[in-house]
Amino acid sequence: MPKSRRPTIGVFDSGVGGLTVLRALLDRIPDAHYLYFGDTARLPYGSKSAATVAHYAVGAVRYLQDHGAELLVIACNTATALALDEIRAAAGVEVIGVVEPGAHAATAASRNRKVVVIGTEATVSSHAYRRALEARSVMVREMACPLFVPLVEEGWLEHPVTEQVARIYLSEAFSEDAGDADVLVLGCTHYPLIKPLLRRVAPGHVKIVDSAESTAEDVACYLGEQAKTGPPRSSPETQNVELGASNLKFFATDSAEKFRKMGTRFLGLPVEDVVHVDLKE
Amino acid sequence: MPKSRRPTIGVFDSGVGGLTVLRALLDRIPDAHYLYFGDTARLPYGSKSAATVAHYAVGAVRYLQDHGAELLVIACNTATALALDEIRAAAGVEVIGVVEPGAHAATAASRNRKVVVIGTEATVSSHAYRRALEARSVMVREMACPLFVPLVEEGWLEHPVTEQVARIYLSEAFSEDAGDADVLVLGCTHYPLIKPLLRRVAPGHVKIVDSAESTAEDVACYLGEQAKTGPPRSSPETQNVELGASNLKFFATDSAEKFRKMGTRFLGLPVEDVVHVDLKE
Repeated sequence: MPKSRRPTIGVFDSGVGGLTVLRALLDRIPDAHYLYFGDTARLPYGSKSAATVAHYAVGAVRYLQDHGAELLVIACNTATALALDEIRAAAGVEVIGVVEPGAHAATAASRNRKVVVIGTEATVSSHAYRRALEARSVMVREMACPLFVPLVEEGWLEHPVTEQVARIYLSEAFSEDAGDADVLVLGCTHYPLIKPLLRRVAPGHVKIVDSAESTAEDVACYLGEQAKTGPPRSSPETQNVELGASNLKFFATDSAEKFRKMGTRFLGLPVEDVVHVDLKE
Repeated sequence: MPKSRRPTIGVFDSGVGGLTVLRALLDRIPDAHYLYFGDTARLPYGSKSAATVAHYAVGAVRYLQDHGAELLVIACNTATALALDEIRAAAGVEVIGVVEPGAHAATAASRNRKVVVIGTEATVSSHAYRRALEARSVMVREMACPLFVPLVEEGWLEHPVTEQVARIYLSEAFSEDAGDADVLVLGCTHYPLIKPLLRRVAPGHVKIVDSAESTAEDVACYLGEQAKTGPPRSSPETQNVELGASNLKFFATDSAEKFRKMGTRFLGLPVEDVVHVDLKE
């Protein structure tokens, strides 16, 4: 449990996608210290089995704790969906995944309790969002959109091809018994980069829930509750710490240079202090 | 050096893509035994550094040799481009990659000695094809097409989106000083699955060179030369061994079930005997 005035938050993802969650955290809790671990040598987790994903994620999370993380954010839908229980069992600190906050926000946003969730094949196959939403009596249609990640990585954020692919995926997602769903959950950390395009393509009445923002909100709530029982976490004066400053440290299992280059696009801020990590299996 | 009448050929790839090379080998040399290693837990190699790729490939190749491979085919453009020297140094048997056979076939096919090579970002960045072709005094334009692999894996082999993406990539590839190139090299093992589409989209005068077929041709030549100096490798009676029979064995580092499912599409034959392998780093 973070007791320091400026808590150290460990953020874990298989690659750079989780930087959209880090960005949301920075916007919401700018005065924390952040350690970000991108397991870029072993990405993508989306095509791997649950056992493999759990094994990799637990190793990464232990590394973050060894480097001072007092609270862990699993900024990876696949790892959250397939391995959150194993990660919680291995970690001695609070662990917040991206699925529960997204499901919580979707439930709050839906009037008719019908929600569409889009994500990678692995996230959808795990039915983690289905379980979380059905437990809240919300009907859910899950839809795998495997081309969105490579389209985002190609940089085709406002491209006619991406729009055509989005029309194909979303028209299938919002069909038949999900035709009147009124919330679209972005269940993959790459998708916030095409949110404006998805906003245009999705039916007009649909609200978009971004798991990255919902997760940052949940982390802020948790820290706020901690602050009530512990010493004051931060003074109002430290709330406006300049973003992208010395409070960010990055670890990547593949090339630091590649991480720096691609990461800057996802974070929307310069990614500078990157350390290459060679994690043994 | 394979001395047996039916040599055991080890085929290595980061995933299922190399099964297009195995298919070409089966068509060309049906009476060999084949061991196929797909490093599916650690794919794709395309986004990884040279050091990581070499480390993974050498481990996989040693595994194939431990299981009896007498000749190794690196059916992965990225591993060939980034790590062929390291693999050769680690292996005590003949190693044939996909780049040299593709470059050789392209040189033979080009009349005006101008060639376009398409592949993943990593293969293109390595400039392995450029080096191999320039050494043969052939002008080369290399073009990364990162969306083709996910489009093939989505199964959109004859889809309007794939056609639109191909038009964008190929019109850029065949422009300016490469406008009169007369050969297109498929420098990625996923691309043979969209060869009919690429045939339609590429300029009419362009010949398509498929690295998978060129590699199988080179392996057949090598075995033919070996046969002249060693004992007879096969009798004419055994040349028409039924495909997909007991002469195929598969190893995958991630889920055997996933490999079976996706693999069948790439091999064009049932993928049955799959063993899960847990390769320590």
